[in-house]
Amino acid sequence: MSYSVVTITREFGSGGRTIAKKLAEELGYDYYDYELVQKIAQESGFAEGFIEEFGEEVSTGGFFSFFGNNWGALNINDQLYFSERKVILELAEKGNCIIVGRCADYILKDRKDTLNVFIYADMEWKKDRIVNLYGETDVDIEKRILEKDKRRKAYYKYYTDRKWNRAANYHVSLESSELGIDTCVEILKSIVK
Amino acid sequence: MSYSVVTITREFGSGGRTIAKKLAEELGYDYYDYELVQKIAQESGFAEGFIEEFGEEVSTGGFFSFFGNNWGALNINDQLYFSERKVILELAEKGNCIIVGRCADYILKDRKDTLNVFIYADMEWKKDRIVNLYGETDVDIEKRILEKDKRRKAYYKYYTDRKWNRAANYHVSLESSELGIDTCVEILKSIVK
Repeated sequence: MSYSVVTITREFGSGGRTIAKKLAEELGYDYYDYELVQKIAQESGFAEGFIEEFGEEVSTGGFFSFFGNNWGALNINDQLYFSERKVILELAEKGNCIIVGRCADYILKDRKDTLNVFIYADMEWKKDRIVNLYGETDVDIEKRILEKDKRRKAYYKYYTDRKWNRAANYHVSLESSELGIDTCVEILKSIVK
Repeated sequence: MSYSVVTITREFGSGGRTIAKKLAEELGYDYYDYELVQKIAQESGFAEGFIEEFGEEVSTGGFFSFFGNNWGALNINDQLYFSERKVILELAEKGNCIIVGRCADYILKDRKDTLNVFIYADMEWKKDRIVNLYGETDVDIEKRILEKDKRRKAYYKYYTDRKWNRAANYHVSLESSELGIDTCVEILKSIVK
């Protein structure tokens, strides 16, 4: 079987985004990153920076509830989610693409042509990788990783009612720190083709 | 990196055992099945049938507690587990082998030469597979699968304090019903080599 869409759910610092980019290059697929944010901005009317920050994470203070108890209206998070969902469904329909994060695995779960992948890694490896990529900062790196993943997990749980680290949500789960980024790309390439 | 030991944790009916056998053939590794039971029998003094039935599952009535409140003595389950653990550590030391189930991933977690794999599958696929392999029975197949996995999960949780379907316990998790048995074998072969 071959797949025209690949979704990649990943831990922060695991290299999931790098794997997605390399895989897209190898397969000649579209990799949506900044373009995805732009499309969601057009669809939703939200600012790109807002989408980048809250399009797959719960904010530190929890979900927004600017609409108070006005149950008839969607809150901001839900509005953003449904815009993302619409854009992701359209991109999948176009085919030959790789989509990172944003519950795409769940949104596309009924598409037979979609391969759902989870990438995770050992904490020490993620810490080293982040320092190498972004340099040292004043913020404690482990705390930042845990906080980031906690917010992604909460977002995923809220919109999918699933635990994001459960193997059965995906067709393939790979530990990038053990296997290496390039081996992960090779494995996925062999499956997609 | 190459691996001299592969552990395969699997859902009942997922084909994990078949994948293990084929992978062993392809790699020229030892695959321990009946021989593992025999070794554990020699080590523990328990009957082979007992080991096959309770060596990786909680019994339907829960863990055995024939020793009552004699806290100084190991209960039967713990005795069996520690015999299995000893045999598995010895086999891993010998190397070039594949071990299915029995918490081997956890027992060997500190060995750098060990690849830990989880195999799971879609329920309808597992049901069809079991009927094809063993024929129809009076017992409801889905109930049998759920019960079997429930007992394996409880056993795994008890001895490892981990959830067996959590991707991060393993280096690779594969959905056999989606990818196919042969593709799973090919992926694992490419990683081990």
